[in-house]
This record gives sequence, structure tokens and C-alpha cells, in this order.
Amino acid sequence: MTERVREILSWYAGSNPGVLSNLARMLNHGALGGTGKMVILPVDQGFEHGPARSFAPNPAGYDPHYHFKLAIEAGCNAYAAPLGFLEAGAADFAGEIPLILKLNNSDVLYETPDPCSAITGSVGDALRLGCAAIGYTIYPGSAMRNEMYENLRELSEEAKAAGLAVVVWSYPRGSGISKDGETAIDVVAYAAQIAAQLGAHVIKVKPPTAVLEQKEAKKVYEAQKIPVETLADRVRHVVQSSFNGRRIVIFSGGAKGSDEKVFDEVRGIRDGGGFGSIIGRNSFQRPREEALKFLDTVMKIYGGKIK
Amino acid sequence: MTERVREILSWYAGSNPGVLSNLARMLNHGALGGTGKMVILPVDQGFEHGPARSFAPNPAGYDPHYHFKLAIEAGCNAYAAPLGFLEAGAADFAGEIPLILKLNNSDVLYETPDPCSAITGSVGDALRLGCAAIGYTIYPGSAMRNEMYENLRELSEEAKAAGLAVVVWSYPRGSGISKDGETAIDVVAYAAQIAAQLGAHVIKVKPPTAVLEQKEAKKVYEAQKIPVETLADRVRHVVQSSFNGRRIVIFSGGAKGSDEKVFDEVRGIRDGGGFGSIIGRNSFQRPREEALKFLDTVMKIYGGKIK
Amino acid sequence: MTERVREILSWYAGSNPGVLSNLARMLNHGALGGTGKMVILPVDQGFEHGPARSFAPNPAGYDPHYHFKLAIEAGCNAYAAPLGFLEAGAADFAGEIPLILKLNNSDVLYETPDPCSAITGSVGDALRLGCAAIGYTIYPGSAMRNEMYENLRELSEEAKAAGLAVVVWSYPRGSGISKDGETAIDVVAYAAQIAAQLGAHVIKVKPPTAVLEQKEAKKVYEAQKIPVETLADRVRHVVQSSFNGRRIVIFSGGAKGSDEKVFDEVRGIRDGGGFGSIIGRNSFQRPREEALKFLDTVMKIYGGKIK
Amino acid sequence: MTERVREILSWYAGSNPGVLSNLARMLNHGALGGTGKMVILPVDQGFEHGPARSFAPNPAGYDPHYHFKLAIEAGCNAYAAPLGFLEAGAADFAGEIPLILKLNNSDVLYETPDPCSAITGSVGDALRLGCAAIGYTIYPGSAMRNEMYENLRELSEEAKAAGLAVVVWSYPRGSGISKDGETAIDVVAYAAQIAAQLGAHVIKVKPPTAVLEQKEAKKVYEAQKIPVETLADRVRHVVQSSFNGRRIVIFSGGAKGSDEKVFDEVRGIRDGGGFGSIIGRNSFQRPREEALKFLDTVMKIYGGKIK
Amino acid sequence: MTERVREILSWYAGSNPGVLSNLARMLNHGALGGTGKMVILPVDQGFEHGPARSFAPNPAGYDPHYHFKLAIEAGCNAYAAPLGFLEAGAADFAGEIPLILKLNNSDVLYETPDPCSAITGSVGDALRLGCAAIGYTIYPGSAMRNEMYENLRELSEEAKAAGLAVVVWSYPRGSGISKDGETAIDVVAYAAQIAAQLGAHVIKVKPPTAVLEQKEAKKVYEAQKIPVETLADRVRHVVQSSFNGRRIVIFSGGAKGSDEKVFDEVRGIRDGGGFGSIIGRNSFQRPREEALKFLDTVMKIYGGKIK
Repeated sequence: MTERVREILSWYAGSNPGVLSNLARMLNHGALGGTGKMVILPVDQGFEHGPARSFAPNPAGYDPHYHFKLAIEAGCNAYAAPLGFLEAGAADFAGEIPLILKLNNSDVLYETPDPCSAITGSVGDALRLGCAAIGYTIYPGSAMRNEMYENLRELSEEAKAAGLAVVVWSYPRGSGISKDGETAIDVVAYAAQIAAQLGAHVIKVKPPTAVLEQKEAKKVYEAQKIPVETLADRVRHVVQSSFNGRRIVIFSGGAKGSDEKVFDEVRGIRDGGGFGSIIGRNSFQRPREEALKFLDTVMKIYGGKIK
Repeated sequence: MTERVREILSWYAGSNPGVLSNLARMLNHGALGGTGKMVILPVDQGFEHGPARSFAPNPAGYDPHYHFKLAIEAGCNAYAAPLGFLEAGAADFAGEIPLILKLNNSDVLYETPDPCSAITGSVGDALRLGCAAIGYTIYPGSAMRNEMYENLRELSEEAKAAGLAVVVWSYPRGSGISKDGETAIDVVAYAAQIAAQLGAHVIKVKPPTAVLEQKEAKKVYEAQKIPVETLADRVRHVVQSSFNGRRIVIFSGGAKGSDEKVFDEVRGIRDGGGFGSIIGRNSFQRPREEALKFLDTVMKIYGGKIK
Repeated sequence: MTERVREILSWYAGSNPGVLSNLARMLNHGALGGTGKMVILPVDQGFEHGPARSFAPNPAGYDPHYHFKLAIEAGCNAYAAPLGFLEAGAADFAGEIPLILKLNNSDVLYETPDPCSAITGSVGDALRLGCAAIGYTIYPGSAMRNEMYENLRELSEEAKAAGLAVVVWSYPRGSGISKDGETAIDVVAYAAQIAAQLGAHVIKVKPPTAVLEQKEAKKVYEAQKIPVETLADRVRHVVQSSFNGRRIVIFSGGAKGSDEKVFDEVRGIRDGGGFGSIIGRNSFQRPREEALKFLDTVMKIYGGKIK
Repeated sequence: MTERVREILSWYAGSNPGVLSNLARMLNHGALGGTGKMVILPVDQGFEHGPARSFAPNPAGYDPHYHFKLAIEAGCNAYAAPLGFLEAGAADFAGEIPLILKLNNSDVLYETPDPCSAITGSVGDALRLGCAAIGYTIYPGSAMRNEMYENLRELSEEAKAAGLAVVVWSYPRGSGISKDGETAIDVVAYAAQIAAQLGAHVIKVKPPTAVLEQKEAKKVYEAQKIPVETLADRVRHVVQSSFNGRRIVIFSGGAKGSDEKVFDEVRGIRDGGGFGSIIGRNSFQRPREEALKFLDTVMKIYGGKIK
Repeated sequence: MTERVREILSWYAGSNPGVLSNLARMLNHGALGGTGKMVILPVDQGFEHGPARSFAPNPAGYDPHYHFKLAIEAGCNAYAAPLGFLEAGAADFAGEIPLILKLNNSDVLYETPDPCSAITGSVGDALRLGCAAIGYTIYPGSAMRNEMYENLRELSEEAKAAGLAVVVWSYPRGSGISKDGETAIDVVAYAAQIAAQLGAHVIKVKPPTAVLEQKEAKKVYEAQKIPVETLADRVRHVVQSSFNGRRIVIFSGGAKGSDEKVFDEVRGIRDGGGFGSIIGRNSFQRPREEALKFLDTVMKIYGGKIK
């Protein structure tokens, strides 16, 4: 157990040993094991966007085993997916990588301005599949937010009692905010705070932009001169907004683009004190060898082996 | 136990022995037993369309015993029906054919653009009636989809814990999609993926057309040149979209037409790697002898005894 | 135990001995005991229409004991009423007549186009009051149908497990159908089918008219030349639609009119193979002696002692 | 135990000894103990109308102990109040007067045409506070009626199993009826019938007026010449509508007015066979001595000591 | 145990020893321990207004440990916060200060005229974190009030059974009242009464203004000449409206302003017989030393050491 992991665990002092062990399992696994940094492979796009949009660019990804293997070989800290994908491989790859069962999901065959994902898995499912954590998505800004917060609360209480860690995808979205506001720095920092207050152990947000969405918040950002120019500035503010760094905050892969653009983003996250990335489409939509190389570079940036 | 059935069961490695046994019961029963192909007789039209529309063409079908006998004599892999029909014969034909209790149903005395079937049976009912599986219908594309996904999730978890297999009818329908979109290839493949991600062991969809409904999906189908011209092409894509063939996907009988048209469709399903058919009206609305002959031909096509 | 009752019980072969015993209790009680025919006294009008409209024509009916006595003396097979009425006499008349606790009820102080009765009793109530069955009303055609079907499902499962029989009042009503459609032959036959598929042991419908409500159904009735001219024709079709006669179907007293008109209706039900009547207002709104004579005639028609 | 109380208890023959004991506790307590008549002190106005409107006229009433003492000293049969008021004195006055915990309440800071009170207490609360009964308000005529009836049903079943009596405030109100209709004789009689059918042991209604609200009912009242001219006539009809007098029906204090007007109303209730009154504001909004004298007169009218 | 604390506990005579002990823990802790006065530090603004608006003015407050330390060093009676903030320090500061877990919270990323906070914690959470009490916010005046009252009821019953005290934030808000009405004296007194009737042990309201919102109430205030001119008058009326002083009522810090203005408000609360203050932003948005000095003055005013 490294000093850094011990330090991180100390922030969760009130948690039971089961939760601490599962947090440690994720922090200690893979290429970044022990560094306190994390790269997670999430594959829920089959549900969220449909199979062809997700897997046709690299058809190997239609197969659930592909993603288990990719996460294992790339040295990711964990692999996150919905029930079906985990059920289709958890026995075959038992013990080879920490798993996160995503407990709610949404498809795009019906869309609504105030989204709320359906609950598609349970804590019992996570336990029987040998998972280290549950995952849950909330949409602050949606009229359905209370239903999501309350479901998360119930599932979290049950998960924690069973020794599972809780990973929250906090994605502002809905009629309460504008499209640009979804990644505005004030909104993303707020979304991280909400997830932290709801009891998340690990928080996932999108890399924020320099936009300021909320009028009352804007006044404060300007009055207090909170730096939001560079991504590192903004990540630093999000980490601060997550209990002053006492909660693990990771960032989604962000928009597709050239590899260098992604790597620059990763550098920004690292320099701002972010804890890592959760990278889906940018990984599994490339051919396997390319993906492994790409993830290796990402991890080296986090691990400090590449500037 | 044939090699093929053993292979199919291996895809469900994470399931408990109870579920594996019930999947095997269905795969090993009847004329196609052991081949990995399935033909299932479903009779829920009495509920879904009313008794006269369903049974007047062949009045023997008013009697619940008729369908048990038809499925047994035709050598179907299983017989699926709502609570009332199964309660009316499960004791009389106990042990003669695997049963699937359809746990939700809808009637047409009240219709709504965003349908949601009522739950009309339970896992407890399925167990006391000696069933091998539960069946459940979801309508992706309906505003009520979340309610259906969540009910299915709860019932599936309970069924699996009790060793029952889960068969999901995944029928896109509702205000999120167009009428033509209900059988569009992108939508049907997506519907199969959703059912798979929700944890279905067996997935039932309609035979897809070459229509592409969703704009974002269309771009990908065209860019990746996914073949969708022939039914075999489309079935192959649906099977791929069901965890790259790691889930049993069967197809509904399709529109009524000449026998040859049905047989051609069955050939398309077989050639695309589909696992079989679930044929209701095309079977029970004919006189018994005709139905037996018709089903025999279908099974011979699947079994490879007829080209 | 007569052959006929034994035959009827054989249709419920999958039911537990508790349910079979309670079905037998009702079939074997009273003047028609053992014939396979049933006449049931239902008194829920106090709740459904108010006390004065129900009982002022024969004020003895304000008293709950009156109806117990009437049902007992008339030799009815069972007495059905809501919680309050049964609680007010179940101890006093314990063991003298099979009781059916109506588990849902509605009043007319607030009316809505898509009705749904409130649940006003439980299976536990039925058991502590010594009932033989529960009763439940569904309104196919109402936007609230799913809620009613699902509540019935839950209550039925609980009742059956406790050995109680399930009697379903299936009354099409709501914005899905026209006023005339409520008693149209296609709709009534469909309503009987729905109740049967939901697992009812005994089904109560209204005597159907020759109207055909649903376009798709009409085509089939005409194409298949299903006879619907006489009441006996229509009753025969409803009985057929109730699992080809494998479920007990009884008919409500129908509109008030001259006694002869009622008796003719009873003859039509008998001649069409109906299992009996459930006659409320036509019984308890007359003076006691008249009611006894009236019911005696009805029973004699069913028993074959009067043509 | 007087003959009269024994007779009243006989109407509840199906109830368990716990319920009978608690009904007896209320019937045997206070100045009217043993007569079969009841005067109950209810104090829920603090919640329903606010503290100043309720207690400023007699500020002693702000104190919860005041009402316990008033009910005890006046010799009321029971004291009814919401959770907070009972919790604030149940220990201090344990065993001195039967208590009724009102399980639902409403405030006027938000009003709606179709009211439904919030559930504010439980059967468990009633038991731990040593109550003899639960109280519950229903609003027949409100679009929310089903929710209220169903909650009452659940609470009643739980209360009866625990040996508690059930007192129902049945107040027609909501968009289904007119303002005048709320106290119309046909509506009040119907409201009493509904409460009785829902299983209430004690029913509280408002003193009815001679108005006839419902068209269908009006025809019957006129055809059957049901007397509704005097209050005594109307009370008699309400008592008859409550299972022909087999349920205890009491009347609310009615509109404020001169004492003589109230006493006349009490005479009307008594002469019509009503079982008593439940008098709140008319009692606790007067100075204590006046209130005691006022209640003494009311009880003497019921007890027959004053004409 | 001081006489005053003993007296206060006597008002809760019906509570179990667990609840009494936890009330005593709060009353006996800190600088005001034993005086019967309370100053509580609440920090839910991170959730309610967002992290930057809450903590940027004094960035130390981003860290959850800061608030534990502030409350401990200032000698507050208790520290109240949502789940995340308490989980992040409860183990580190175990036993150093009584904790109140706020069980519901709201954010401003989506706003609605009829607010209802999401449930974000449970009684089980409060127990495992070693809390002395649960906290819950109700919004009388909101169309959602019933949902809030009913959730509070359930949580309170569970909390009391587990020996936890119940603190209710009663904040009138919603489409039933005007903006000015939210702090009108009649409305605030009513809100206190509602919280008391719902069974709160400790009630938190905002300092009321002299506005009279409700027409019917206004008449009574004027007729009875209830004094509402000074804050002390109004506080006295709120305390009276809280069971004549038999419930602990504390007041929120009120609008930001000069320190002297706050201290004057505290004097008004003290002089009107209020039990103390709950001061968030006015405390934690200042630098630590300033905050300690500020709170020291507040406590000295309550303790009588400063006029």
C-alpha cells in the first residue's frame, strides 16, 4: 500500500472496511496502481447510443469479451458497463479487473428535455457479479433530478452497507440549464459538489469550459477572481469544489479529436490536480493495438512518465 | 448434451445452474432439440387483440388445452402465454413442454401513443406453474420505456435468483419513433442491444426492414457500409448487435402471407445466423393438421433438412 | 360431490386444494348446489350509488343483516359485498353462506371519464371474515386499466396462495370505448377473455347486445359469421371466449324491467350455456317475500325446473 | 357495563376484543359514560387553520396541556388531536382520557379544489401514545378520493389488527360537488355510508341541510318521500344510512352561533337518534369556565337531563 | 444537568430516553451548554447554492473539516450538514460535537414555483455517523407540501424509535403564498405550528416581519390585537405558536448585513423568548478568527453576558 493510496483512503475515514478495500482495489490495480491516479474504461454506449453507432467503427467491440480484455491489457484501474455487458463476461474474467456495474441507463429511441435514466441493475447484481463499485448517472438541471438523487441515495446506502464503492456520473442536463451551460465551469463545479454531498466516493464530470452559466454564481466568480482561463485552472476549481480535494474526481474523455488534443486535455487534468480519466469511445472505437498505445500514453502522462 | 448447446450455455457462464438448466430444457426440447435452434409457440393474442380476432378463424383455439397440445405435437421448444392460459393447462400437461409465462400484456380496448403493458403475472406464478422462463415485453421508443425497463429489471433479478430464464420481447413502438421505424434495421438492432444490456437470455424481435430511422445512426450505417439489403444481412447485423452472437435472438413470425413467403423469411433468418422463430397466429389460426405440417416445414428449414 | 361440480373443478386443475374447496363451497351451496349453476346476491350499491338510491325502495335493506338473511333464505350460492357490510354481519351469520369480499369500490360523488375503483379491502380482511372468495372490478377501456389489472394481479396471487377463489367483475367502460360499446358483444367477449387471462376463477359480465364496437373485430365477426342475434347466441360466444367454457361466467341482473323480461334473460343465459346470474337491485329493492319468490323462479329456470 | 353499551358493542361482533375494549373505553368514559352517547373534544384547528385563528380568542389554547385538561374536566368521552399535540401531553395525562390520534391533516397555506390531507401520524404512533383509536379524514367528492380511501383502508386494517378503533371524519368536498352540496342531506348520508362501508367504527359528519345535490338521488328522495325537513329528520336518515343505526354516528359542532342555536342543534341530533357531537372551536375558543358550562349543557341534553 | 435543561426535557415527557439524551446532548454542549439556549452551525449551502457562491468568500470552507472545527472551536451546540459533508468528517471528529444530518436538500440548477427538496440521507445514515438528530426541510405553501410532510412523518417515526431528535426547518414557500408572505408573521407562526404538530422537537424558522399575509388570519390578528411591531413581539408570538413555548424554536441568521444589525436581531430573538439561532453564511463566509469572534458575541448575547 503506497503512502498516496493510504492518504486517499484517509479521506473516507468514516467508510466501512469493505468500501475502503474496494476503493483500494481500484486504486491499486493496473498500470497506475498505487499512484493515486485512475484510468477507467466505460462501455455503456451500446445502450446509450445504439450498437452500430458505438461498435461499427471497430466491430470487435460488439463482443462483450473484447472490452474486458482491452481494459485488462491496457492496465486500466477498472471497467464499467451496464448489466448485460458485465453478465456476459464477469465469470470469464473473474478476478482480473475491478468492475463497476452502471446501475442506470438511457437510450435515444425516446428523448425528452428533462432526462432521467432507467434503473437497469441492482446492488445485488453488483455483488453477485463480483464488482468493486456501483455506478450511477445523475442529471442536475433536469426536472427529474429529485427522482435521480433519491434513487442514488437508496442505492448508495445499500451499496455502502455491502462494502461497495459508489461512482457517480454527474452530468448537468435538462430544462434548468442551457446547452452551453452543461459544461460551464460554475455548473460543472456545482455538479461535482452535488455528487460529493450525495455521498459519492468517486465523481465523474465532463472537462469544464470557461463559460459561466448562472447569474448569481457569475457575480461571485468575478468578485472573487476565481481563475477559469486554462483547463488546469478549471480542473483545480472542480477538485476544490469536491470537498477541497478530499474526493476522487475524474474526467470524461471529452470530445473526439486528434490524439494530441486528447493528450493535452489529459495534461490539463493532471496539472489541475484531477485524479484521472474515464475514456470510452476514444479507446474502444479504435483498432485494439492503436487503443492500447493510446491508453498507454494517457497513463504515462498521468504517471508522470511523459510531460 | 450436444456440443452446440454446450457452446450456447457457455455464453451464459455467469448464470446460476438453475438458469442454465432451464435454458438447456428449452434448447433440448422438441424437434429442434440439441440443434441450438428454437421454434416457440406464443399465444397471447386473446389478450392482445381479443378472442374472436384471435380464435374465430380456428375455433379450436378458444380452448387453452388446444395450444398446449399443438406445441407438444408440433415439437416446439416451448409454449409461451399469459397467466390465465397457462393456469388452465399447466397441471394437465405438466412436464410435457417447457413453459414461458408472459408477465405483461396489453389489450386494444384502450390505446395510447406511448404504450406500456400491464404486469399480469409474477415470478411466483411462473414457479408454481412449473415454467422454464418468464417473458416480458418492452417498447423502446415509448415515453413509458423507463417504467418497463425498471419492471423488467426487478422481475429479471427475481427470476434469475429462482433459476428461471428471461425472454424479452423487444418491440420498438411509441412517440419516439415513426411507424416505419418500428421495424427499421437500426431500430431493431438497437432494440436487441437494449434487451441484451437489460440482461435478457433470449431476445425476440421482429424481422427488420432495410429502413434506417435514426439520423445519427444512418450516418454510421452508410459510413461503415453495413450491409442491410437482404433479410439475411439484416438478421446477421441484429445477431451481431446482440453481443456478437452471444445471446439467443429469435424472430417473430412476421406478417401473414403465403406459406412460401414465410418459409423464405425463415430461410433468411437461418442464413443470417438467427436462432429461430416464435410463430403465433401463423400456427394456431390454421386447422390443426395444416399447422402441424406448416411448423414441421419451418423446423426442417432451421434443422437444415430443407434448403 | 356431483359429477358436474367435479367436472367444473377439473378445469382448475392447477389450483391448490384451498381454492378448489372454496369453489366447491360456492358451487355446492344453496338451492342450486351441485348443479353447476350459481345465483349470487351482490350488495355494493350503497357504496356505488348511495344509500337512498339503493335502499329507500325497500328500507329493510339499510340494515346489513337483511342481505345476509335474504341470501341465506333465498338459497343463493354466495353473498358479495364491500368490507363494511360484511364486517357488520360476518360474525352473526358465520358459516351460513359463502361470502365474497368485494375488494374495490367507487362512488358517484366524483366521476371521471376513465374510472378506477379504490381498493377498499384486503385478502387479510377476506380471511379474517371467513370469506370463500375475493371480488374485484376491472374497467377495460379505461385509461386506468393497467393500474386495475396490476392491483388485481397482486391481490389474486395473494388470494390464491391463501386458498381463496377470485371473482372478477369485468365491465368495459372508459374513454377507449363508446357508451353502446360497453355492452357490445365483441367488447363483452373481450372483457371476459381479459378476466380469464388475468386468472379469474369466476367472471362476471353484463348480458351483451348485438352491437359490434371495434372495427377490426367487426370484420372478423362478419367474415366468420359468428352468430350474435339472440341473447343465447351471444352468451354462448362469451362462454366460448372464456376459455371455451373452462371458466365459470355469470351475468349481471341486467336492466330493470318486468319480471318476465328478467326471466327471459335468464332463459337466454341458461340456453347459451351461461353459469348463472348475480342479481342485486332486482332482488333487494323488492319487499322480502317478493324477492324470495323472484329469486326462486330464477333458480328454477337455471335448475331446469321451469322452462 | 350497561345494557346500552353492550348492545352497541354487539353491532361490532366481528371485531377483535382489542377493538371492542377500546370502543368500550370511549363509550364508558366521562359524563356520558354508559349512556351510549358521546361528546368528543377535537383540536386540530392549529394545523388546519393556523395558531392565531384557532387560539388567539382564548390564548390558553396555545398550550397543548390546556386541551387535555379541558376534555378531562368537561367529562368528554375522548380527546382527538394530531401527533404533535398528543405527543406534548400523552405522558402527562396518561390514563386520564381516551385519546384519538388524527392521522391526517391539512393546512391552508396551499389550497386546491380537490383536497387531500397529508398523513401525519401512524398506527405505531397511536399505540406508543396509548390511544384508543385512530382518526382519519376523507373528502368524498374530491378527485383525490381514491388515494384517501386507500390510505384509510391500509391504516384501518393495521389499526384493527392492533386493537384500535377507527374514527372517520367524512367531509364531502371537492370538484365533484357544489359548495352547498357539501352539507346536502343526500351527500351527507352518502358520506356516512361510504365511511361505514370502508369499515369505520365511529363516523363523524356535518349536520346536514335540506338541500338535495345529486339529480339521481333527488328523484328517489322525492319518489320515496324521505322526510328531510327538520334536523331530527335528517339525522335520522343519516343514522339509517349508517347501516340502519348499527354504526356510531356523531356530528360536528356546526357553524358558530348563539349557544341556544347550538343547543337546539344538539337536541335535533339527539331526537334524530344521533350518537353525539364532536365540538372543537365552540369549546376551546371560550374561556375555560364558560366552556365547561357549555359542554355540561350539551352533555345534559344528550343524557336527557335537559330537554 | 441544569434546572433549565431539566425543564425543557420535561416538555418532551412522552419521548423515549434515547431522544431525551440526544436533546440533552445538544442543550448541554458548547458555550451555551446548560442555559437552554442554542447556536447551531448549518452548512448546506454547498448543495443549496453551489460551491463557489458558498465557499469562495472564505475558501477554507471548501474543506469539510473546516466546518467541524469551526463549530467545535466556536462552542456551537451542534453542527448540521448534508450526508457528504458529515461523511467526510464524522470519523475524524467523532464525539467532539453533536451532529445533525440534514436529510433533504435542493439545488438551484433546476427551480420550480412549488419546491420540494430531494431526500438525500436516511435515519440509518444518521445512526452510523453518530448523529444526535436528523434535520428536514418542509415548504408549507408549496403544492408539494403533502409529499414533504409525509416523508418527514416517516423519517421522524423511524428517527424517534432509534432515539434521534428531530429538527425541522419550516420555510413557507411556493405558489400558495406571496414572496413577502414567506416571512409574514402569520405565516411564520403557522409554519412553526405545523412543524410542532408534525412532531418536531426543534423548530427552525426565519425571523418574521410585521406583514400579515392571509386574509382570514389578518382579521384575527387585528381583532385580538396581537402585538407584531417589534421583532421581540413577533418572536414571542412564534414561540407561543409553538405549543406555548413547549417546543424549542430557533431562528435562522437572517439577511446579511452589518454585524450590529445581526446582533440586534439576536437581541430581539432573545428578548422574545426565542431559544437561539442557526447561523450559516454569516459564520463560515468570514475568515476563521472573525467568525469565532462573531459567534462569541452572539452566544454572549444569548447567555446574557452582553445586553
